[in-house]
Amino acid sequence: MFGVTILGNNSALPAYDRHPTAQVVTLNEQLFLIDCGEGTQMQISRYKIRRSRIHHIFISHLHGDHYFGLIGLVTSMGLLGREQELHVYAPPGLEEIVNMQLKVAVTSMPFPLIFHTLQQEGMLIDNPKFSVECFETQHRIPCWGFIIREKKKPRKIDREKAVAHDVPAAYYEKLKEGLDYERDGKLIRNEWVTFANTPARSYAFCADTKYYEAIAEKTRGVSLLYHEATYLKDLEERAIARFHSTSVQAAAIAAKAGVDRLLLGHFSSKYESLENFLTEAKEIFERTELAIEGVTYKV
Amino acid sequence: MFGVTILGNNSALPAYDRHPTAQVVTLNEQLFLIDCGEGTQMQISRYKIRRSRIHHIFISHLHGDHYFGLIGLVTSMGLLGREQELHVYAPPGLEEIVNMQLKVAVTSMPFPLIFHTLQQEGMLIDNPKFSVECFETQHRIPCWGFIIREKKKPRKIDREKAVAHDVPAAYYEKLKEGLDYERDGKLIRNEWVTFANTPARSYAFCADTKYYEAIAEKTRGVSLLYHEATYLKDLEERAIARFHSTSVQAAAIAAKAGVDRLLLGHFSSKYESLENFLTEAKEIFERTELAIEGVTYKV
Repeated sequence: MFGVTILGNNSALPAYDRHPTAQVVTLNEQLFLIDCGEGTQMQISRYKIRRSRIHHIFISHLHGDHYFGLIGLVTSMGLLGREQELHVYAPPGLEEIVNMQLKVAVTSMPFPLIFHTLQQEGMLIDNPKFSVECFETQHRIPCWGFIIREKKKPRKIDREKAVAHDVPAAYYEKLKEGLDYERDGKLIRNEWVTFANTPARSYAFCADTKYYEAIAEKTRGVSLLYHEATYLKDLEERAIARFHSTSVQAAAIAAKAGVDRLLLGHFSSKYESLENFLTEAKEIFERTELAIEGVTYKV
Repeated sequence: MFGVTILGNNSALPAYDRHPTAQVVTLNEQLFLIDCGEGTQMQISRYKIRRSRIHHIFISHLHGDHYFGLIGLVTSMGLLGREQELHVYAPPGLEEIVNMQLKVAVTSMPFPLIFHTLQQEGMLIDNPKFSVECFETQHRIPCWGFIIREKKKPRKIDREKAVAHDVPAAYYEKLKEGLDYERDGKLIRNEWVTFANTPARSYAFCADTKYYEAIAEKTRGVSLLYHEATYLKDLEERAIARFHSTSVQAAAIAAKAGVDRLLLGHFSSKYESLENFLTEAKEIFERTELAIEGVTYKV
């Protein structure tokens, strides 16, 4: 399972029961929370997200609609008796705010709360199963996007063929890595005795940004790209002035980046209906969907 | 109109679609917000509270379930273009937190945001129409209750009688204040020519507290007392340990204080049903109601 569940799809002002930005990415048994607007802990309860499985929280930038819910979520985890580490990746300043909020309440968390400061593009987490990297967007204040990638999956052994070719079982791990096998000067090609696995998938969360072509390069070829689309195309000037994007700008980035699918979110509270976002974006990039709260999109 | 609308009636952990503490007191055209837990701005929208009429916000203490929603509400007011002053009465520390949150967002409010530090019991606002005072409760950290009082209302002129007694119209304002009239050595008693007005009403919000008898003195005779009741009576020991009250303790305070009516809130997320709070409290103090979100209780 690799998917993203939308907890909030609205921009700064909550409206029409749409909430500020928050998403949960599920990768097998691991949950990642990306952004944490006000009310995220309620949305987590509403959509039955298992908060104990969240070990990593990524905060794109320090506009309130992307982090005001963090302190409530964290202190509730404390009240629920959490003991596991919680890692928060955020721009400088958030740790100080959270610490001050804990201090005035004369409280401390019963679990290690570990802050990692976002300061340059690159790898945040890299382990045998997945990696998370961050990249810069162009917003009014420093702002980061995140890419979560499955690791390249091992090939699958075709046991019948492997046995027929007399490959010893001890060599199977090497076969999975794609190596050929050599015996008595004879080469057994890897592809004769293995199947390809499904390709490794990747999800890019592109946080608040104005239209910024470099994002297409940074997110090239991901399976699913989330890109903000605060306004419809007729409000491009407003989008530029406020460092946000329009429906068609998001779609243009998706097309340039050659991604499989595009997910639009961060809709302005100007819009009660979201249909036009989809219509406009699909004219540029057909494989577009709208981020709807409570819905899980497969990566 | 003098009433209180409940926006959040739950204690720290949001549960069963109950929210952390927040209440709006309406006194004629004036709205007062008391406490502002996470999600208050959404509750304000949900229950169609006119946020532009809120000029005073009172924060009882700096446990998150009583103030985490403040920064979101304030910044949304800014986005909506508010220009009127907003006064926030809170314990020391909150102003610094809010300022730091504005600073990291590189933003400032388009209206004067004025903090008043709660440091001693007494009058916070005193004008010809109403007064607001604060009093200390006993909680794990410094915590304040608030009393909002209408000013004593002028008596009403009984015009027929006043004319019959030859009281000049120029003296009517004095009659309204309760003074007698003297003419040619003859005394016209005030009550002969006026009616009593309805008595001035008062609302006391008693924030988080353990059972603390002094509160009965501080809130003596108010029309409506809100008192926290985090637990049912069988959990009195837990209530003591956590500086909270039980249903029957709240009712005992109401009885001792001689208030007209009692409103219970701040229910623990342990309880899905709230019925027992009412049953237990009514055994001690009959005129008790439960604070239910979205409901307005007349003072």
